[in-house]
Amino acid sequence: MQPLRVALGERAYPIHIGAGLLGEAALYAPHVRCRRVAVVTSAAVRPLYLGRVQAALAAAGGEALAVVVEDGEQAKRWETLDRVYDALLGARLGRDALLVALGGGVIGDLAGFAAATYQRGVPYLQLPTTLLAQVDSSVGGKTAINHARGKNMVGAFHQPLAVIADVTTLDSLPDRELRAGVAEVIKHGLALDREFLEWLEANLEKLLARERGALAHAVRRSCELKAQVVAGDEREAGQRALLNFGHTFGHAIELGTGYGTWLHGEAVAAGMVMAAELSARAGSLARADVERVRALIARAGLPARGPALGAERYLELMHGDKKAAGGRLRFVLLESLGRAALRADLDPRLVRESIAAAVQ
Amino acid sequence: MQPLRVALGERAYPIHIGAGLLGEAALYAPHVRCRRVAVVTSAAVRPLYLGRVQAALAAAGGEALAVVVEDGEQAKRWETLDRVYDALLGARLGRDALLVALGGGVIGDLAGFAAATYQRGVPYLQLPTTLLAQVDSSVGGKTAINHARGKNMVGAFHQPLAVIADVTTLDSLPDRELRAGVAEVIKHGLALDREFLEWLEANLEKLLARERGALAHAVRRSCELKAQVVAGDEREAGQRALLNFGHTFGHAIELGTGYGTWLHGEAVAAGMVMAAELSARAGSLARADVERVRALIARAGLPARGPALGAERYLELMHGDKKAAGGRLRFVLLESLGRAALRADLDPRLVRESIAAAVQ
Repeated sequence: MQPLRVALGERAYPIHIGAGLLGEAALYAPHVRCRRVAVVTSAAVRPLYLGRVQAALAAAGGEALAVVVEDGEQAKRWETLDRVYDALLGARLGRDALLVALGGGVIGDLAGFAAATYQRGVPYLQLPTTLLAQVDSSVGGKTAINHARGKNMVGAFHQPLAVIADVTTLDSLPDRELRAGVAEVIKHGLALDREFLEWLEANLEKLLARERGALAHAVRRSCELKAQVVAGDEREAGQRALLNFGHTFGHAIELGTGYGTWLHGEAVAAGMVMAAELSARAGSLARADVERVRALIARAGLPARGPALGAERYLELMHGDKKAAGGRLRFVLLESLGRAALRADLDPRLVRESIAAAVQ
Repeated sequence: MQPLRVALGERAYPIHIGAGLLGEAALYAPHVRCRRVAVVTSAAVRPLYLGRVQAALAAAGGEALAVVVEDGEQAKRWETLDRVYDALLGARLGRDALLVALGGGVIGDLAGFAAATYQRGVPYLQLPTTLLAQVDSSVGGKTAINHARGKNMVGAFHQPLAVIADVTTLDSLPDRELRAGVAEVIKHGLALDREFLEWLEANLEKLLARERGALAHAVRRSCELKAQVVAGDEREAGQRALLNFGHTFGHAIELGTGYGTWLHGEAVAAGMVMAAELSARAGSLARADVERVRALIARAGLPARGPALGAERYLELMHGDKKAAGGRLRFVLLESLGRAALRADLDPRLVRESIAAAVQ
């Protein structure tokens, strides 16, 4: 299958999507040649895919060092990043080295930020192995680590040379993580493409059953939609904010419950219902459509209500979110199913009421 | 006086050079408007210039927080950077904030890297207060912190919105630091512009006496030369390497003697003599010109010989330098006074002999 292209001028790159791609040396060859390569991966991913990737890199002419970090969100911190730099420097990798991010969104963010900053920037490949990473974090060049005061507060925009999304890796994904990835797929339909949303309503069970054709279509269409938005707004000045549909509430949920209690996708799922509720109260979305959003989220086995943190606590948590420009709260609302828009002029009363109506 | 322009397309920016510019609100106004601003500076610079800069920013409509870090090279480390992030997050500065780097090269590198990575990148202004920073580190967008295994190993290319180089700040510079800055000025003449080199030979005493006209000319011509090179090679793929004349040996000196023992400019001064010696032995520079380089360095009160570390130790230290592409040692040599070129094919014997001939 033809790869997707993310059209970013001199930083344009292909996304290869399909079954069994991790082992295809031909996909690595254009980027590797005689380069020295470091594969950054996590302890859990290592036994599953590292050997296959190193063999393919070797067949493509690359000598691949492995840098294995701890699993989970806690890897997105300075201490872990410093260990990655240390391994690269210890192996004397120069500015012509290539990094490979093999794993989920955490590895993509961490290894991508390492690539953005190691010796002022080296190229990298994204090999996402979770649905969330395949549909979301591997497209757009956002990389980051967390800070004690907030998630993703330190990072860079750094586009990969290519993304290789092998849908067979999703076979090893725990069910809860698969569903969390589906939340971002649904987001793309809700915010950007009604037709895709209707395809999801018709094919949700196939996706959850991990049918490869359904997975490949969901990943491809999500990446296409995201790539179109990113190509028009690489640095998140405007249009790209629409991809944050559900995320203002979602981040508040993650922060308010303590990171890791809710998976990111779960928080976004409840956040999307809350944002749909706010859209209806702000007069931009029909009430029946809110119920349609809620029903789809529930069918996907995702939380359709936020935790009861209290409206004031939500507002406080959202106020610290970096998407609040100049202190004002901005929301991505739905104007209709498949069409999101940015709103910055909402009555805070509506926000409070929507929170109260959409939590447990 | 008209500002210089660094021609980098959408990342182009002006460099303002002159006496008393730090207090001119009009220079800040186009970048500030109603923005929230954080001035990053060091403990030693704070009492000298912070008040003046904050007053000018206020007159330009900006509300300026101060973030004061420790003095010296040790500030270029993660712990200090993290304190900068912490101050910015604590003050709830968003992605529309503006950072201002007020100080020497260390502050420029640290605050520039903070700007490159805070919330995935915010704009910044460079206000260099040392000669070295004015002629060198404030042009080109290189930012970095150090790693235990090497200097500037973690960083980014991040261009400022503008540079404001106020030559009156050089009045407060210790004599040794002024001379270290002169080393980089001489480098621009030696590597890129014979006419400027001859101007330096004729006006060195005026520079060292801090005559404002001479300083302004030296800063302006250095920035012009560097800006031309950077504009043609933003990411240091080729031509920009010529700016590293003297730096391969210089970094070895800094590393081999322990950072801080030799100032960067002092190490580069001796490194330039060593590189001139190597140029002569490689057959590209006349012997008389090596002596002319040595004489100018000595007249500037800079070390014209490297420390006696032993040739093998130099080679070992240079081999870890990030400018060694794929393990091979590359050198910037002089083809004539005012004209440098990159060479990667040198007989290691010549390198050893040159080191032996040019150390104490």
